[in-house]
Amino acid sequence: MSSRAKQRLPLGRAYGLLEPGPVVLLTTARAGRADVMPMSWHTMLDFEPPLVGCVVSDRNYSYAALRSTRECVLNIPTAKLARQVVGCGNTTGAKIDKFARFRLTPRPASLVRAPLIDECYACLECRVVDTRMVRKYGLFVLEVVRAWIDPSVKRPRTLHHLGWGEFMVAGRHLRVPSRMR
Amino acid sequence: MSSRAKQRLPLGRAYGLLEPGPVVLLTTARAGRADVMPMSWHTMLDFEPPLVGCVVSDRNYSYAALRSTRECVLNIPTAKLARQVVGCGNTTGAKIDKFARFRLTPRPASLVRAPLIDECYACLECRVVDTRMVRKYGLFVLEVVRAWIDPSVKRPRTLHHLGWGEFMVAGRHLRVPSRMR
Repeated sequence: MSSRAKQRLPLGRAYGLLEPGPVVLLTTARAGRADVMPMSWHTMLDFEPPLVGCVVSDRNYSYAALRSTRECVLNIPTAKLARQVVGCGNTTGAKIDKFARFRLTPRPASLVRAPLIDECYACLECRVVDTRMVRKYGLFVLEVVRAWIDPSVKRPRTLHHLGWGEFMVAGRHLRVPSRMR
Repeated sequence: MSSRAKQRLPLGRAYGLLEPGPVVLLTTARAGRADVMPMSWHTMLDFEPPLVGCVVSDRNYSYAALRSTRECVLNIPTAKLARQVVGCGNTTGAKIDKFARFRLTPRPASLVRAPLIDECYACLECRVVDTRMVRKYGLFVLEVVRAWIDPSVKRPRTLHHLGWGEFMVAGRHLRVPSRMR
């Protein structure tokens, strides 16, 4: 599979990738071993530096790596990757190498050890900056420290999870004049 | 405008309305006066009882009402309401009655004093259950105490904000067999 040519995106624009609510693939790496899990429970918390709140349960294999390394990447897939997304959610990194099983290509990130997923059109390198809400809600606060995007993808067909493997796929765009960032 | 016939939705299914990341219209009421603001920064925190984390800045007029009454409704609009959504975001309840200005119809809720918006296809009555993250992140934790849905709306064309009044509108559905709730 060919490598997608990604470019850096100014950090102040990262919110526009997550605010619409797409499923993301969260990658971590610990002791040289990378893992990936789908995640839909996330929200922006601030524009710049971009802060993201995301829920990773202690029942997820990725939890221990996220907690100990305090680094991850939020990779945004499109509908072409729907089967891989569901596959990653229905298996555990404790037993298999999901990158190999689902033919996802890890690429080195710039500032964190967790890998970028080459097949995703955008990738946000993140550091954990607040764990005070982890015990009660599984909520990690992340700071996006570097953002990457494939500029050839103009209207990404992102996936939005409705439950039990049913997704809404991003449709048309609509613009209304607004002063709201 | 005719009243939409909404039915109660089991609370355990409420997450499926918010997990895909739609813009919501948050209503509050204080001293007999209702207000409404659009909000995109929210995430599910738990399935049942459904907990939602949402960011309301102290620069928003709704902040004081949410903080003091500890009640709100999350109303989910579709693309038909795009102009009203943007209008509500570009005005302040300190100066105008947004319901009157944007022809939104308030209806009494069951368990909270904030109104349901009749024109929205789904409405979630909420109570604030945790304010510890409000000072730092503007993040309120809400518990959904009653959920309403118009059962005639099968594929709601929800709005997903990309920034500056540009929205992605919910498109087609896609299903992949999955064990993930």
